[in-house]
Amino acid sequence: MSFPEQYKQRVKSINAYLMNSIEIIENKKLKAAMAHYPGAGGKRLRPLLATIACESVGGSSRDALPYGVALEMIHNFTLVHDDVMDEDLTRRGIKTVHATFGIPEAILAGDALFARAFELVPESGAHAADVGRLSAVLAKAVRLLAEGQQMDMDFEDLRRVRPADYMKMIDLKTAVLFAAAAQGGCIIGEGIKKQEEALTEYGRLIGLGFQIWDDVLDLVSDEKTFGKPVLNDIRNGKKTLMVIEAMEDLRGREREELLSTLGNEHATQSQLERARDILDESGMIDHAINVANGLIKDAKRKLVVLPDSKHRKCLEEFADYMVTRKT
Amino acid sequence: MSFPEQYKQRVKSINAYLMNSIEIIENKKLKAAMAHYPGAGGKRLRPLLATIACESVGGSSRDALPYGVALEMIHNFTLVHDDVMDEDLTRRGIKTVHATFGIPEAILAGDALFARAFELVPESGAHAADVGRLSAVLAKAVRLLAEGQQMDMDFEDLRRVRPADYMKMIDLKTAVLFAAAAQGGCIIGEGIKKQEEALTEYGRLIGLGFQIWDDVLDLVSDEKTFGKPVLNDIRNGKKTLMVIEAMEDLRGREREELLSTLGNEHATQSQLERARDILDESGMIDHAINVANGLIKDAKRKLVVLPDSKHRKCLEEFADYMVTRKT
Repeated sequence: MSFPEQYKQRVKSINAYLMNSIEIIENKKLKAAMAHYPGAGGKRLRPLLATIACESVGGSSRDALPYGVALEMIHNFTLVHDDVMDEDLTRRGIKTVHATFGIPEAILAGDALFARAFELVPESGAHAADVGRLSAVLAKAVRLLAEGQQMDMDFEDLRRVRPADYMKMIDLKTAVLFAAAAQGGCIIGEGIKKQEEALTEYGRLIGLGFQIWDDVLDLVSDEKTFGKPVLNDIRNGKKTLMVIEAMEDLRGREREELLSTLGNEHATQSQLERARDILDESGMIDHAINVANGLIKDAKRKLVVLPDSKHRKCLEEFADYMVTRKT
Repeated sequence: MSFPEQYKQRVKSINAYLMNSIEIIENKKLKAAMAHYPGAGGKRLRPLLATIACESVGGSSRDALPYGVALEMIHNFTLVHDDVMDEDLTRRGIKTVHATFGIPEAILAGDALFARAFELVPESGAHAADVGRLSAVLAKAVRLLAEGQQMDMDFEDLRRVRPADYMKMIDLKTAVLFAAAAQGGCIIGEGIKKQEEALTEYGRLIGLGFQIWDDVLDLVSDEKTFGKPVLNDIRNGKKTLMVIEAMEDLRGREREELLSTLGNEHATQSQLERARDILDESGMIDHAINVANGLIKDAKRKLVVLPDSKHRKCLEEFADYMVTRKT
């Protein structure tokens, strides 16, 4: 059984808890806007990670479920607000929240998902004395997410972004929430300090791998498999690791061709494909895949502090899944 | 010494803690956007309430300071997002956050203030076992704020709003945060359950009084004293208690005159003043003042469960200040 399949039942529990937690909202418009993305599916990677991390230190997955759902709400709140900021009109094959309900409603729905997430944290089976720390872990992660999002927006106005800047940005914008998932799960499962540190770092590393692989998929996948339009990052001029490294290395005509297509809304399909081929032929895609694989390898090494168990094995598979998934 | 003057020193401590808590932000643009409103002053009523409530049950004001600052951050985050939603360009005599930094930056600054608030909660001197509950109190308050804001936005499209709807809306949009201030202060000060319930209700009632008085000031004050343009609510067509009651009661020409000015951006100063006079002469302003005074009286009655002390006296003065303040 492949990694996600063995957790089908758990994903059902996550979805039920998630949608139920939104039911409490009285205002119909607010509730509908809040439920728009959570109801449209998703892989639930962060809740899964939290529950498996909890199990890996001897806890029960049930205890980590509310915290996991809180992470999923935070993730969805950032999607809602990011889509407003980026003026994106579609996501997951449906209209974005602000395109459906209006910008004020989307800002508010994001805020309410954010608030609701923090209401769920005490529902977790954590020791009463740990609940405050759990909230603080989550709050810090969201603060760093905001730093990452601002850094990403700043990139748009920069001519040159270094690979290290990119790594820092995705650390903040993507990896910290995976880190908070693994750390929180460990706190709820009452893991020892050494395990908490290792799981936090494991979460961070697979989060970095996840994001680089996401950027790779945008180039090498097709829309049907990926579930969203491909070559979008090129059209939007997104400064991915591959683009950044290409800009450092390439000279002459290839550089000019790539530059003229990046961020060009009117680029034709063949121009987009040519840009992709330039990144491919110059070895940038392979390089990014290597970086992602290296991060996953490092992440798995962190797990040695955990007792040998099927849950540890699942965390290894989880890490591999980050950079083998097709969607 | 009048109510706010006796807390000058405390307001200084609140301001220092507030601005210091924003200093941790690395991204310069994000930090500046977050500091824009907190740095422009404000009465710090919510932190003051939290610290005095804490003292009133025998706690130390210092212990409640971080929680109080968290409330102030939440308050400021809602101002930032509300201004985006309402497309307002000035506040507190300065340009709004989005007018200064851009809409994406304002959305993000609000989110980051929100997150930072929840990071501060564990810095309070609450029992470790109470920190989780403190976070949950704050989270629930923010969720209800969002319900109130959506309800307020829904009012814009409604022809008829009943007085009870208005009371519910300001309960959610304004009073819950005052309630959370008093309740949280009591939790930190380790008040007993009866005191916590009484202080929560006290906070809610003075919050309602605060909002009704705010609507009154918009009509009876002048710009210089009020510190912001007056008669704005009439121009914006805001459905205040006074307007709602007038719409229930008035008939004939006065009703027509009022209706033609409400929400009319092009209304002249004399039309605005005429609308104000209609509300005044029909007794609506006096009625609202009576309602506000009644709420404050009820609020003060709740305080009987507290030990007789100068802090209880201060809470009485605090309540009175809500409906006597000029700004």
